Amino acid sequence: MFQLFYTPHTCSLATHIALVDARAAYALRRIDFSKTEQRSPEFLRINPKARVPALLTPRGVLTETPAMLAFVAHSYPEAALTPFDDPFRFAEIQAFNSYLCSTVHVAHAHRMRGYRWADDAGAITAMQKKVPESVGACFELIDRHILRGPWVMGDAYTIADPYLFTLAQWLEADGVDPSLVPRVAEHRERMLSRESVKHALAEEMAI
Amino acid sequence: MFQLFYTPHTCSLATHIALVDARAAYALRRIDFSKTEQRSPEFLRINPKARVPALLTPRGVLTETPAMLAFVAHSYPEAALTPFDDPFRFAEIQAFNSYLCSTVHVAHAHRMRGYRWADDAGAITAMQKKVPESVGACFELIDRHILRGPWVMGDAYTIADPYLFTLAQWLEADGVDPSLVPRVAEHRERMLSRESVKHALAEEMAI
Repeated sequence: MFQLFYTPHTCSLATHIALVDARAAYALRRIDFSKTEQRSPEFLRINPKARVPALLTPRGVLTETPAMLAFVAHSYPEAALTPFDDPFRFAEIQAFNSYLCSTVHVAHAHRMRGYRWADDAGAITAMQKKVPESVGACFELIDRHILRGPWVMGDAYTIADPYLFTLAQWLEADGVDPSLVPRVAEHRERMLSRESVKHALAEEMAI
Repeated sequence: MFQLFYTPHTCSLATHIALVDARAAYALRRIDFSKTEQRSPEFLRINPKARVPALLTPRGVLTETPAMLAFVAHSYPEAALTPFDDPFRFAEIQAFNSYLCSTVHVAHAHRMRGYRWADDAGAITAMQKKVPESVGACFELIDRHILRGPWVMGDAYTIADPYLFTLAQWLEADGVDPSLVPRVAEHRERMLSRESVKHALAEEMAI
């Protein structure tokens, strides 16, 4: 049994979808940012970084989406969410997921979490202003150079797909016109038609 | 044979050290930022992100340090650089390396690459000002909560170690006093005594 510490509308959705895809046994533990629960002593014992997501497993806690996704896939090999028997293909998926966490999510985070990188109010406003351009450039690169279709890695659905879908949820709010990244937009629609995605989204809203 | 596209003083050093650790056959291909070679048509064919590092392998190109490190380790299992037979331990290493790329390196990048996230000169100065605090907080978390010692994951040297060492090279320039993160500083010294690290550093400076 896994416990996923999550908050709606955050990147925890990626691991949530993967848990459903894997038919894993899991429980959701919602962390309420409005009550700063991510800084509660209880949660800091789970994740001293004071962030979601975190995954409590029988072996201990994991954080960081690329690692959690790989572990879920590894724990349920019958779901075939990643090709562990092919180190190069696996590395390609890890490269994509690393790009999402280190560049795409970071560009997005400058809209609402600029205080991480500057104290000055004017600087935070300047960061927000550039988000449509910086996030847009990331998704254009994905659209033109990486996304193979119909899934990120081609014919096989993998742990790259729920992660891309999760960040693509924020396109409009980040000021990026989805019609400029048509293959990403199409991927998002394809994901929305999956039962696992519908289930995860409904579950996050229901609690 | 691998080809590593690298630039001295960047995070490409992590993969370079791992290649030496693995006793891999590799060639170094230096990318000169002062000539904006990272934006040359030749390099954009290798990596459309216009960044180092990139690893040309017999199967194709890989980017993103966590993925490249995992692939080097996977390609040379006799070097035992990561425990692929233990999915949880492997995920812990991936979690650490994801934290380095998505949070630690990003905090550092606000010192010299603020233009990625704002156009305003005042904003870029405000970002630079916060780097000692934001990078310092990351290394304090690593020092107190993650680094097990003597190596990142404990007794076994893994692909987490060259990556931590690479980012810890920048502590002083980022305005972080190494004495405030004594276990990280000690890890850095331990790494510097390794022949693979000495070899990689000498090779980067010699070309």
